[in-house]
Amino acid sequence: MEILLSADGAEALGARFSSIDGITPILFQRDGSLTRDGVPVTRDEVNPKGAWLSLDVLITKRVFDYVDHLLNLPSLEWIQSTAAGFDNPLFVEMAKKGIRLTNSDAQSIAIAEFVLGSVLVEFQNPTARLQHQADKKWKGVDFREVAGTTWMIVGIGNIGNETAKRARAFDAHIIGVKRTGESPEAHETIRPAEMKTRLAECDVVVFTSPLNKETHHMGNAEFFSSMKEGATFVNIGRGGLVNETDLVAALNKGTPGVAILDVFETEPLPEASPFWDHPNVRVTPHSSPKSNGTPLRAQQLFLENLEAFLNGNPLRNEVSAETIIGSAA
Amino acid sequence: MEILLSADGAEALGARFSSIDGITPILFQRDGSLTRDGVPVTRDEVNPKGAWLSLDVLITKRVFDYVDHLLNLPSLEWIQSTAAGFDNPLFVEMAKKGIRLTNSDAQSIAIAEFVLGSVLVEFQNPTARLQHQADKKWKGVDFREVAGTTWMIVGIGNIGNETAKRARAFDAHIIGVKRTGESPEAHETIRPAEMKTRLAECDVVVFTSPLNKETHHMGNAEFFSSMKEGATFVNIGRGGLVNETDLVAALNKGTPGVAILDVFETEPLPEASPFWDHPNVRVTPHSSPKSNGTPLRAQQLFLENLEAFLNGNPLRNEVSAETIIGSAA
Repeated sequence: MEILLSADGAEALGARFSSIDGITPILFQRDGSLTRDGVPVTRDEVNPKGAWLSLDVLITKRVFDYVDHLLNLPSLEWIQSTAAGFDNPLFVEMAKKGIRLTNSDAQSIAIAEFVLGSVLVEFQNPTARLQHQADKKWKGVDFREVAGTTWMIVGIGNIGNETAKRARAFDAHIIGVKRTGESPEAHETIRPAEMKTRLAECDVVVFTSPLNKETHHMGNAEFFSSMKEGATFVNIGRGGLVNETDLVAALNKGTPGVAILDVFETEPLPEASPFWDHPNVRVTPHSSPKSNGTPLRAQQLFLENLEAFLNGNPLRNEVSAETIIGSAA
Repeated sequence: MEILLSADGAEALGARFSSIDGITPILFQRDGSLTRDGVPVTRDEVNPKGAWLSLDVLITKRVFDYVDHLLNLPSLEWIQSTAAGFDNPLFVEMAKKGIRLTNSDAQSIAIAEFVLGSVLVEFQNPTARLQHQADKKWKGVDFREVAGTTWMIVGIGNIGNETAKRARAFDAHIIGVKRTGESPEAHETIRPAEMKTRLAECDVVVFTSPLNKETHHMGNAEFFSSMKEGATFVNIGRGGLVNETDLVAALNKGTPGVAILDVFETEPLPEASPFWDHPNVRVTPHSSPKSNGTPLRAQQLFLENLEAFLNGNPLRNEVSAETIIGSAA
């Protein structure tokens, strides 16, 4: 069976991939061309049934070439993504063609560590500590504890639960928000309709939701004005979850007190965005998953699902076509 | 019964203290004088049985005046400290006089948060993130995860266990080091003699031990050379646990890779110390307990122990005279 993946992705997998019986890799090279057994091939000459959208492809401009292949290979039955989200129109097109999608939770641990790290930085102010050291000044920086704070994690799934697990070890109280079901890590799980009545209790609010028609711009003027003064707002979900104009106005009123933003409506964030210069905004370039552990777990997930695919077993993290198409409608 | 405490300490306690029946506060004023019911009194005129060494006194130079009172009040039976350590000669003198000491765990949560915050800062590099933002550069900073790292917590007690609880929620493996007994939070507890054979596994090593004749300079050249290259060393115990000359030499060889030091052999840290300027050292001024939560928990502990003392019940966190005198011998 032919499997499409990037040459860099295949190299990272090494023998764990190349030693699998019955697999013929179709390699997507850095120049956008395809090869099989080291020989250049055209798209019409190959028939991959599975494909891996690895991180090296996903985060570069080469993703457009790769997606062009994916959409024009009639043999394709399954794609393993390296992202959690499926709001990209690509996934809708593929779902409509009947191609199965498995998304990724490999980044959940990285993002949870990013959230805790970022909140502790706000509470502890290492910049001031380093400045005192540079000045050889024996002067402490009083800090705020996570203990005793209340966190709301909106759209609590894999990423949110990993975040909750860490924050509750700091003796924070965790309110998870979820359309259905209960979070195994939150102290309580509430429904989206209840969010606004609980926001005033929350010291930290984290958006981890997928982007769909219900969640688009849920962070708006009304939402922010319901928050606690000086609270910390974190968005590691999708830029489209937040009305950015409303957020800037809200920050200027002090509610929230600070916004830690890793995702934006337009990425890369345009130079004219007021976020870059805002004293109470921390901008990172959609890099919360970029840890040393994410690529290793992503490789592991692809290999597990590849084995399941080859054997006709259920795939881990499969997102139904109905969910993909429905969420974009 | 007369109870000695600082005027600021009494004010912070408010009605929780002033409403206790049968208590006459002897207040230690900011100018070093004593008052009773608003009237100046000499040391010879008062007979306090209990005293609170509150944080406002402990961290200022007024502590010397206060201690002078403590050592010259024959009525004194019990002192509630706001520190965990009892290596100060004062406590030995008091123990020899038969004065009971209760130490404090009020700072444990703060110190544990400080340790996690400091390690995450090293792993995530927020300074580089902020620089990219200032430059309006859409450029991520790859980071290292705590997940999968191994931590050794040397002298694992209250502070160490609070640290372990948080680090293990990040999926770190925790080795506790303790002379006797088992840590409830570490994955395994080992004895001091086994430390050196396990150091090469450890990504993070935290000193939380009390200072005594066994632990003095346990961080020496041999210890550091047994560590893993590039590992993170944290000392929030006592400066005397570390041979500072050896640590500088070890840092210059890259083992440990970085030292997070909140305590020093001489405090305040002398201006000539090489730590101030060392690129791989983070200096803070014994401020790891200085959170918003520590004073509140310290007040709570004093009030609880005061009630127990008044009723002749066992005191929480009592350190035996034998332990105090023995550890200094």
